[in-house]
Amino acid sequence: MGASTSPVENLAALVGDDLNAVDAVLHSHMTSEVALIPQLGAHLVDSGGKRLRPLITLAAAHLFGYAGTAHLRLAGAVEFIHTATLLHDDVVDESALRRGRAAANVLWGNKPSVLVGDFLFSRAFQLMVEAGSLSVLGILSDASAIIAEGEVMQLRTAKNLNTTEADYLRVISAKTAALFAAAAKSGAMIAGASTEDCQALSDYGLNLGIAFQLVDDALDYSGRQAVMGKAVGDDFRESKMTLPVILAAARASDDERRFWRKTMEVGVQDEGDLLRAIELLERGGALAETIDRARIYASAARAALARVPEGDIKSALSEIADFVVERAY
Amino acid sequence: MGASTSPVENLAALVGDDLNAVDAVLHSHMTSEVALIPQLGAHLVDSGGKRLRPLITLAAAHLFGYAGTAHLRLAGAVEFIHTATLLHDDVVDESALRRGRAAANVLWGNKPSVLVGDFLFSRAFQLMVEAGSLSVLGILSDASAIIAEGEVMQLRTAKNLNTTEADYLRVISAKTAALFAAAAKSGAMIAGASTEDCQALSDYGLNLGIAFQLVDDALDYSGRQAVMGKAVGDDFRESKMTLPVILAAARASDDERRFWRKTMEVGVQDEGDLLRAIELLERGGALAETIDRARIYASAARAALARVPEGDIKSALSEIADFVVERAY
Repeated sequence: MGASTSPVENLAALVGDDLNAVDAVLHSHMTSEVALIPQLGAHLVDSGGKRLRPLITLAAAHLFGYAGTAHLRLAGAVEFIHTATLLHDDVVDESALRRGRAAANVLWGNKPSVLVGDFLFSRAFQLMVEAGSLSVLGILSDASAIIAEGEVMQLRTAKNLNTTEADYLRVISAKTAALFAAAAKSGAMIAGASTEDCQALSDYGLNLGIAFQLVDDALDYSGRQAVMGKAVGDDFRESKMTLPVILAAARASDDERRFWRKTMEVGVQDEGDLLRAIELLERGGALAETIDRARIYASAARAALARVPEGDIKSALSEIADFVVERAY
Repeated sequence: MGASTSPVENLAALVGDDLNAVDAVLHSHMTSEVALIPQLGAHLVDSGGKRLRPLITLAAAHLFGYAGTAHLRLAGAVEFIHTATLLHDDVVDESALRRGRAAANVLWGNKPSVLVGDFLFSRAFQLMVEAGSLSVLGILSDASAIIAEGEVMQLRTAKNLNTTEADYLRVISAKTAALFAAAAKSGAMIAGASTEDCQALSDYGLNLGIAFQLVDDALDYSGRQAVMGKAVGDDFRESKMTLPVILAAARASDDERRFWRKTMEVGVQDEGDLLRAIELLERGGALAETIDRARIYASAARAALARVPEGDIKSALSEIADFVVERAY
């Protein structure tokens, strides 16, 4: 846990062997006599994702002194919900890359991606049943419905230059932050934390998730993204109205506004347009401002932890809130 | 309940106002501030489906004297799982018609169909949480995973002329019959029926579901289908290896085998090919034989009810087993 390790590694070290145990849970629940299912599942599950969401579930359980094993299944359920969402997202977005590898829909086609997503989603619920808490199941099924709502909302804001910052915040709160909130809260709940402490963890996750998505949306217009194995400009190509574009469009000159209208609303993108978009977002300060917003939500995530037990885990969760912003640099 | 009513209507009458109550559950759980969700959801939920699966859940609960209201939520969950599956199926199959209307993917596109399917699937689990039984939740989440497995299996058998009857039975047991089995069993479980009675209902549902799908697959090559508001020849166009084709291919002349290879394996279908397929399936007896198989499973469904309490509900469930076969005529 020296200064050279990342906050995610620090937190992982604090939950002992739990992350390996979660990996075992994921693999044992991905098996199927239909060979394509574990193949396609493993492509995503073993693609080097940080397991940030399940890690938060594990940490939240430890934070309140949990000594059982049900948190491993909940963490597995959280990761499966996330994986299923990624599979369906990539179909919906027609993505080519995911975590630096060809996306599953490119390798196997849309049909298996939709159906294996459904399979993993079902497996998530089987894991929750095994975990044995109906109230935690309620938290995670609520989150799943909210995620789907957020994804549909996002479809409706795409190509709409009148999308407001409030619209955008509603979308990312639902499509991204709801799962972070449920991941954190479910760990606290399984550990028997008080209603107030469960709410604190939920608030932590929600704010962390918003910060996370804000930074993701800034990175989509940044060279850092290429380093992380993601395509740059995916959101631009899909005409997604993310905060950088919303901020830039709001203060655009007439000429710039024509550019945004052409590339986002009409959806006509010529060679050099992505570079011009990046240049406009950087020069006008929209990227920096998006990161500033993320910093505010990261602070709120840290503040939400005020009431929870002091110690290494609380410190590490705090550091993660900073980390999701700092990874932008 | 005169002789002119269908067995489905007979059974519906025996569960009193429950089907209306389930409709209210479905509509109250389809609401969302994202307008597209209830719009697209209602397109399917209100499209005049027979509600056969939820009706079986309700009937199974009544059969064992259930006096509570949780069965309404379970029946709603079963219908939502079915609806979500239909939405994703139509994307995967690129269907144009569903229950005599344009399929949702045609009207709104694939993206909303995938995402609203996810939403309804999540709502199904919320309903199960509200119903309050973790063991019933286990039954329905197991069924959901099996359905997805069956759908992936079906992708792998498509265009494969070597698909056996055993392969086909595995596919339809999973993609169709598992939900009928879970629908029946969950009603019995919520009513506190014995393990043996729950198993009897599960067996009833499984066999009923297999009979149902066999008839569906025969109807896809029959004029009756057009009357029911479905496109004829969907399976043919998608090169799905259903039992009629499996049986016909197994006894095909060299010339006929070339025809099946061209239309199913190579997937080249010229004008008149569907008519020739129908003619081959009818003349060779494959359609009649498929219905004969369905009749065997319908008998097994009736036989599974041997141990459950005698009465109107048992009789109506028995009649439904015959009805799913007779609708072929």
